Amino acid sequence: MSAPVGILEVAAMRRWSSAARAAGKPVGLVPTMGALHEGHLSLMRRARAENGVAVASIFVNPTQFGPGEDLEKYPRRLEEDLALCGQAGIDAVFVPAADEIYPKDFALFVDPGPVAQPLEGASRPGHFRGVATVVAKLFNIVLPDRAYFGQKDAQQVAVIKHLVRDLNFGVEIVVGPTVREPDGLAMSSRNAYLNPGERQAALCLFRALGIARDLAAGGERQATQVAAAMAEEVIQEPLADLDYAAVVDPETFEDMESLDRPALALLAVRIGNTRLIDNLILEPAGNRRGKRG
Amino acid sequence: MSAPVGILEVAAMRRWSSAARAAGKPVGLVPTMGALHEGHLSLMRRARAENGVAVASIFVNPTQFGPGEDLEKYPRRLEEDLALCGQAGIDAVFVPAADEIYPKDFALFVDPGPVAQPLEGASRPGHFRGVATVVAKLFNIVLPDRAYFGQKDAQQVAVIKHLVRDLNFGVEIVVGPTVREPDGLAMSSRNAYLNPGERQAALCLFRALGIARDLAAGGERQATQVAAAMAEEVIQEPLADLDYAAVVDPETFEDMESLDRPALALLAVRIGNTRLIDNLILEPAGNRRGKRG
Repeated sequence: MSAPVGILEVAAMRRWSSAARAAGKPVGLVPTMGALHEGHLSLMRRARAENGVAVASIFVNPTQFGPGEDLEKYPRRLEEDLALCGQAGIDAVFVPAADEIYPKDFALFVDPGPVAQPLEGASRPGHFRGVATVVAKLFNIVLPDRAYFGQKDAQQVAVIKHLVRDLNFGVEIVVGPTVREPDGLAMSSRNAYLNPGERQAALCLFRALGIARDLAAGGERQATQVAAAMAEEVIQEPLADLDYAAVVDPETFEDMESLDRPALALLAVRIGNTRLIDNLILEPAGNRRGKRG
Repeated sequence: MSAPVGILEVAAMRRWSSAARAAGKPVGLVPTMGALHEGHLSLMRRARAENGVAVASIFVNPTQFGPGEDLEKYPRRLEEDLALCGQAGIDAVFVPAADEIYPKDFALFVDPGPVAQPLEGASRPGHFRGVATVVAKLFNIVLPDRAYFGQKDAQQVAVIKHLVRDLNFGVEIVVGPTVREPDGLAMSSRNAYLNPGERQAALCLFRALGIARDLAAGGERQATQVAAAMAEEVIQEPLADLDYAAVVDPETFEDMESLDRPALALLAVRIGNTRLIDNLILEPAGNRRGKRG
């Protein structure tokens, strides 16, 4: 595989993508904040396989970080990331500076509405406004035929699906499964923050989701019972601080009462200074497929 | 000229526009709410002349009307409008139903930021959120190379320019001059609401803008003096009820203090039950060109 083209400017990215389309090549886009792991790379390989050209963006988007969050210390390792993009078959990597995406006087945002209110939206005010806005910008710059996101950020996926539906973007959203370490920890760029003890403690998220899955498969119908069991598992971990444990409708992110249809179990947990999230689709008992998110 | 194609559905509009682009034809778009007058038609002829194909949309956008505004009684005369589009050289007219643009569960909006706050934004809360959202949708459906708007709605033009800039839409915004009746009244679909006495009273807007232009050309430097003179002219008209008279920066819509550069004079006036707006670019004394907005 040859090294991907690195593109710094909006106008150049637009031209590159436009030329690909003019040559009859569908464009796949994988938006990332860098610090790439196998979760990102699996999306990139898929974008490469399913399109004429594959574009990745690496942009640590300031508008999706709140005050006091980890914008400054978010891991940045561009050279390594570019090599990984090349290995995954990416043709062009869009690496804009912050003021290329947010020039002085930038002032307009996408307000993502109710799906962005609970859970991550409540814990991180403004987060999904920043996500929806930067994704709208990337879609308009690259005009991809398909864009690839990971199920690990389940509420982000829901926000982006609403963005595409409600603003009529002509892009197909493809969602890749959560990629996990051998012991079950969901891959995340933020795992790099964990010391060895915290890394071990972080397994409480996966254990809690397993308990939720088993309860649902065993016939438990009360969503509150399932959420409570997840919370209990996290609380037993001394290094963990529970932010939320919830069971919601996978499309609307509204609370579910009865597990009479597939539901989404979600967790946000602080381990030391590191905030981790994870989720799993719960199939109620009687459903054949036991999907792992 | 042949009759334009009428298109009712988002998917069909997207396909039509995409086929034109694939055939190498740049697409011009003229978004309207129908009840077409010479202001719209001048934009359509220009879209026809400057592009490979010209699309008009006719959609009375509910989200840009507030409670108690004239959504229900806004003039609708589709057959006549389609004939006028044909005469103006429009190739396709997009005429979606309200639930085609806003399906059940629609929930996401573009928040246009500070440029949408004063003047029309203050008098019509939510108006520009509705405008920015529907225009973003139309841009994503049609993917025009150029889109045409009238200077009569000056703050709308500013909002749309910010929308394009901040969300990186790949569309050129073309602004056509305000088209006026022989006596100076700016053409507007809402002029149809005026009875003969009100029609005469409505000339106070044009008179007030003329006073502003003459003051600026004569060397008046204080924007507040110019705004006050406009207000005074309107107040002398018994059938008129002044909403605002202002002099602002034409890009940011922030108040201007000193007329040391081109400024925008704006008026909103209620004549009976009809709310009219108008505006004019003011060139300070010493500037050669005396532009009429």
